[in-house]
Amino acid sequence: MKLLQERILRDGNVVSGNVLKVDNFLNHQMDIELFNEIGKEFKRIFDELKINKILTIEASGIGIACITAQYFKVPVVFAKKAQSINIDGAVYSTKIESFTHKKTYDVIVSKKFLNPDDRVLIIDDFLANGCALAGLIDLVRCAGASVEGIGIVIEKGFQNGGEMIRSMGVRLESLAIIDSMKTEDGSIVFRKC
Amino acid sequence: MKLLQERILRDGNVVSGNVLKVDNFLNHQMDIELFNEIGKEFKRIFDELKINKILTIEASGIGIACITAQYFKVPVVFAKKAQSINIDGAVYSTKIESFTHKKTYDVIVSKKFLNPDDRVLIIDDFLANGCALAGLIDLVRCAGASVEGIGIVIEKGFQNGGEMIRSMGVRLESLAIIDSMKTEDGSIVFRKC
Repeated sequence: MKLLQERILRDGNVVSGNVLKVDNFLNHQMDIELFNEIGKEFKRIFDELKINKILTIEASGIGIACITAQYFKVPVVFAKKAQSINIDGAVYSTKIESFTHKKTYDVIVSKKFLNPDDRVLIIDDFLANGCALAGLIDLVRCAGASVEGIGIVIEKGFQNGGEMIRSMGVRLESLAIIDSMKTEDGSIVFRKC
Repeated sequence: MKLLQERILRDGNVVSGNVLKVDNFLNHQMDIELFNEIGKEFKRIFDELKINKILTIEASGIGIACITAQYFKVPVVFAKKAQSINIDGAVYSTKIESFTHKKTYDVIVSKKFLNPDDRVLIIDDFLANGCALAGLIDLVRCAGASVEGIGIVIEKGFQNGGEMIRSMGVRLESLAIIDSMKTEDGSIVFRKC
C-alpha cells in the first residue's frame, strides 16, 4: 500500500533492537484518516470471504480493527491480556510471548463471542515473530470457528513470523512488508508486491 | 442517548460487586454501528469546542475514541498502562488506581503527542470512581494543554466520580447515567436528562 509505505518512510524511526517506531501515526498517536484508507484496503483484499467478525488483540490493534469493521459491517472482538487469576471456564485462553516486553501473557476471549459458525478476519498492527498471531489463531480454532484471513499493517519480513503463519495455510496479507532496515542511517527497504 | 439506554437495558447485565457487564457491545465485543451513533452524539455535544485531539486510555476506550475521531477529523492519542521500568523523561506520567483490578498503574503519554496548544476531548467507555479520568486530566495539564470536554459512554451516577470530575470545573457529558441498579432483579434506573 503506497500511502502507508510513504508514511513509514516519512514518519517511522528505526531504533536499536530492530524496533521500528511508528508511534506518531499507528500505535500511540493514531491517524484516523490513514486508518480509514487501511480499512478500505483490507475490505478490498478480503471482500469475498464473507467475514462476519473481526478479532484483534489489545491494545494497539483495536483502533485499526474498529475502523476496518465499518467497511465490513461486522462487530469487533478484542482478545484481552489477562491476569491468570481471572481465567475461568467461560473463556478461551492461550499464551502469547511478547517480543517487546519479554514476557508471557495469558490472552483470553469470552466463549460468548467466538462461535463455530464465525468466519473471522484477524487484524493487527504489527507482525514480527508471529507469537501474537499464533495465539489469536489458536483462540479462533479453540472455538471451532475459521480464520478466513489475517490483515496486518506492517510486517517485519526479516523476522520469521510471516513465514511461520503462512506455512500454517492461513491467508495472511500485510499492507507493508519491510525486508530490511538499518539503525545507522534509518534506511528501510520494502518488499516488492 | 435513548438508543444507548435501550441497548443497556436489553444487553447489559448487573452482576455482584456493583458491576454492569456490557461486554457484548461495548468493551469486549464492540458494536461498531452503535459506536458510530455514539461518535455522532459526541460530535453534536462538543462541536463548538474546536477540539484538535482526542485522548483516551487503553484498552476499551480506544475503539470509541477512534470512531468518534472520524466526526471531529482529529487524531487519537491513547495513554498507555506502563511498566514502571519504561518511564523516562520523554513521557508525561501519572498514577491511576483501577477499580476493577484493585491495583495502581503508571499511565503514560509521550511528550511528543500532547502540546500546550492542544484542545483535548477525553473519551472513555466508563466512569465510576473517576480515577482514570483524573489521571488523564492530570496528563493533559502536565503538558500545558486544555481539557475542553470529557465524553463518557456510561456513568455510574451512584459512585462519586462524576461529582468529583464536575467539581474540577471540567465539562463532562455522559451519554447514559445510571442512578441505581440491582443485582437481585437486574433492574437499572437511568438519570433523567
